[in-house]
Amino acid sequence: MARIDLNSDLGESFGAWTMGNDEAMLSIVTSANVACGFHAGDPVVMASTLALAQQKGVAVGAHPGFLDLWGFGRRVIRGDSPSDIEAMVAYQIGALQALAVRAGLRVTHVKAHGALGNLSAEEEELALAIARAVRAVDRDLMLVAMAGSQQERAAEAMGLAYAREVFADRAYDDAGRLVSRKLPGAVLHDTEACAIRALRMVEDGAVTSQSGKRIPVGIDTICVHGDTPDAVAMARAVRATLEAAGVTVAPFHLK
Amino acid sequence: MARIDLNSDLGESFGAWTMGNDEAMLSIVTSANVACGFHAGDPVVMASTLALAQQKGVAVGAHPGFLDLWGFGRRVIRGDSPSDIEAMVAYQIGALQALAVRAGLRVTHVKAHGALGNLSAEEEELALAIARAVRAVDRDLMLVAMAGSQQERAAEAMGLAYAREVFADRAYDDAGRLVSRKLPGAVLHDTEACAIRALRMVEDGAVTSQSGKRIPVGIDTICVHGDTPDAVAMARAVRATLEAAGVTVAPFHLK
Amino acid sequence: MARIDLNSDLGESFGAWTMGNDEAMLSIVTSANVACGFHAGDPVVMASTLALAQQKGVAVGAHPGFLDLWGFGRRVIRGDSPSDIEAMVAYQIGALQALAVRAGLRVTHVKAHGALGNLSAEEEELALAIARAVRAVDRDLMLVAMAGSQQERAAEAMGLAYAREVFADRAYDDAGRLVSRKLPGAVLHDTEACAIRALRMVEDGAVTSQSGKRIPVGIDTICVHGDTPDAVAMARAVRATLEAAGVTVAPFHLK
Amino acid sequence: MARIDLNSDLGESFGAWTMGNDEAMLSIVTSANVACGFHAGDPVVMASTLALAQQKGVAVGAHPGFLDLWGFGRRVIRGDSPSDIEAMVAYQIGALQALAVRAGLRVTHVKAHGALGNLSAEEEELALAIARAVRAVDRDLMLVAMAGSQQERAAEAMGLAYAREVFADRAYDDAGRLVSRKLPGAVLHDTEACAIRALRMVEDGAVTSQSGKRIPVGIDTICVHGDTPDAVAMARAVRATLEAAGVTVAPFHLK
Repeated sequence: MARIDLNSDLGESFGAWTMGNDEAMLSIVTSANVACGFHAGDPVVMASTLALAQQKGVAVGAHPGFLDLWGFGRRVIRGDSPSDIEAMVAYQIGALQALAVRAGLRVTHVKAHGALGNLSAEEEELALAIARAVRAVDRDLMLVAMAGSQQERAAEAMGLAYAREVFADRAYDDAGRLVSRKLPGAVLHDTEACAIRALRMVEDGAVTSQSGKRIPVGIDTICVHGDTPDAVAMARAVRATLEAAGVTVAPFHLK
Repeated sequence: MARIDLNSDLGESFGAWTMGNDEAMLSIVTSANVACGFHAGDPVVMASTLALAQQKGVAVGAHPGFLDLWGFGRRVIRGDSPSDIEAMVAYQIGALQALAVRAGLRVTHVKAHGALGNLSAEEEELALAIARAVRAVDRDLMLVAMAGSQQERAAEAMGLAYAREVFADRAYDDAGRLVSRKLPGAVLHDTEACAIRALRMVEDGAVTSQSGKRIPVGIDTICVHGDTPDAVAMARAVRATLEAAGVTVAPFHLK
Repeated sequence: MARIDLNSDLGESFGAWTMGNDEAMLSIVTSANVACGFHAGDPVVMASTLALAQQKGVAVGAHPGFLDLWGFGRRVIRGDSPSDIEAMVAYQIGALQALAVRAGLRVTHVKAHGALGNLSAEEEELALAIARAVRAVDRDLMLVAMAGSQQERAAEAMGLAYAREVFADRAYDDAGRLVSRKLPGAVLHDTEACAIRALRMVEDGAVTSQSGKRIPVGIDTICVHGDTPDAVAMARAVRATLEAAGVTVAPFHLK
Repeated sequence: MARIDLNSDLGESFGAWTMGNDEAMLSIVTSANVACGFHAGDPVVMASTLALAQQKGVAVGAHPGFLDLWGFGRRVIRGDSPSDIEAMVAYQIGALQALAVRAGLRVTHVKAHGALGNLSAEEEELALAIARAVRAVDRDLMLVAMAGSQQERAAEAMGLAYAREVFADRAYDDAGRLVSRKLPGAVLHDTEACAIRALRMVEDGAVTSQSGKRIPVGIDTICVHGDTPDAVAMARAVRATLEAAGVTVAPFHLK
């Protein structure tokens, strides 16, 4: 019987500014990637996100990004050495771990955010730096890797368990990469269509590109966005559609 | 036979800016309080400070401060609730712990920095918030407490081990508090005099106030500053004078 | 015939985070106090706020605050000298002026934000530092001063024109000061009651304290908040009620 | 008779951290490019740099950079639109202008810093965005442009006066571009050799590449670095050598 995790990037408020509806999302997803203060989040937001996750039994992971509040971690920043990146990622994981311990939780996984995530899907050196940071901090942490990416290979190279991720609401190209957000059709908005698409990915073990090409990939978790106006409806539809088809929705680290 | 720890606040560089001479200081002191990125330090600076400490066998502690790079954590910031402070302190401890694990070290202690340190020496609520954060993250962490302060009482209330700290180069008032840096004579600059003063404190189990009053206090560690021009000479003189008098200089957590 | 300005603190989004509904508020108020990047706002947000203000004919002022994105400028920060404060305020005014020139506008006024505003209403030294900064940058800038406060006296001492401000939705104490937000009843939420209250203030030339005491003050501008859920409704009601009573609502600097 | 300006990037301290010896440098150079708080500098540092420049009769310019204190503005940040860059540059110019007015000075020029400078030397779109920002804020500001670069073309396209800059201590490639700092020999350290090299550039109206190729360029100003250990000695030698050869050293904007 098929089994899948639903993950979302949460805890992305900062100080007086709110992003998304974390409480609602945490009632739907099974894993939360929690911003760690570099691109979003702050210690107080992190603590309250963790408290909610604890209440709702959602697995929590670190969601490290570039130090770029202004750009929300979406801007590419170049000039750091791999060991700088390692230190930057280790710092963020540790910060979340301490707050998780305080909340009676343990951090189960790490997923790179935004530009750091996109670059490390493509670039071996960066993917390895992140995986080395994860392994150095805690070998039991799982890496969330874009299915088929350098992140997956880096996790293997470092001997880390990993979960392969696909996106319910993002278009893929024929190479199995996400279509850039700058291109038309990159982000899908039809809630029902995305839910059915997610189910097909799981049943089929593949993603389908914009041109219709089927690209087989291992799939352990589906990312649903938390920061769009229709995020909650989308996440609910994806979960409901999966469960209606008999797919078990549960945290990947419990597999 | 008397035994004492020498501690210093280190890792206070940031990016391209250097503060103090950490390499020299780490050859003299037995405990380092490492800035955690809020008032000074960054992940890369933290990693290199930890690597040096590891080489030189110096115990490392977290040195959390207010989020205030511009003010170097010396400005009082009001408006956070005790639970906000807890989250802020836990975050910084965790960030250092992860980098310490990566460097093959474990964090042994926590000492609040600058305005956060000064306020928590005086204010029970703040001292308790910090001690709660330490306990929540790791009950085995020791708290460095200004001798006779609210920090000491908070450590006891929370059941944390603690090290009582005095300053070789700071004047005390008759209540056993540090004389404000804004007042004349608050900071002592005569290296030899400070070294002898440190020895007397240890031998006598007391500090002597500006007016000459003797104030008995428990003393586990002496703080020597790392960010002044004559910091290295001062630290060397204090250590040499203590050792010449037969005092053992060793990390407090090994006591 | 009575005449009054309606002002609001706007441009308080930051990067990916939105605060309030600036476009709607700029269709109602006659003066906008634009955040300058220290407590909120960033160059891109400032530019778009200015462009909207330009379209809608709203006067723009600088809204400088403490350097505290995390705390939204609401936390008290102590430790800066008056000349540090002067530099900090001048910097923020200049940043907005340059963006205003680019938008075809000129900055007409300055109003201190949050903790900087509250402290400078009470403290002569701080009020004078801010007024000196304004005068040093541009003698033609008006200061928005809480009616009856040290800000008003500082503007007079520095020879600056100023506008006296009252709040439609904040309770006053018998000394004519705002009741702290931490106390019950400090913020009024009944839209209609606030609108009538604003009209009475203008007609009466006085504010009424929580205990019912009438405190005569000069009133040039009424502040309506832009960052609460019912901000737009409140602002609209205040303006409609004033205009229905024959009060002219127009920018204070055109008086 | 030949005439040249000597410029240096100054005011790059931040809070408690010092960079370089601004006082000494301001006694040697004729133009200072003052950091504006995004990559270095803060309002207080800017104010004191301006006060020193005012005393010593040095022309002051804005030195805007990416928002990147951690990376000192040397990291490439991608993802901002040209109009975002415009706003970011205008903000920084305005901040310095206000502090300059307060110091009894006017800002004479703008020079992009670090990665923003290097990128805009090569990329037309970015160079135009910066030039548009300068023109929008004040048409009388001069642009400091790397000789022969996109910056020079952008200044011409926008109708701005500009000063063409060469570097006394940086190697050039055959295309007249700076050799990357990551390559050997990119930065020259021999004070006397650099001084003679600077004089030859001025006399010859050309730079000589690493391979010995002569590349004719217009030269209005020579940059001497302020943040290296031997910065002061280098700047002194360059000035002395130029003056000994009869070259007049004076601010470019007075030409």
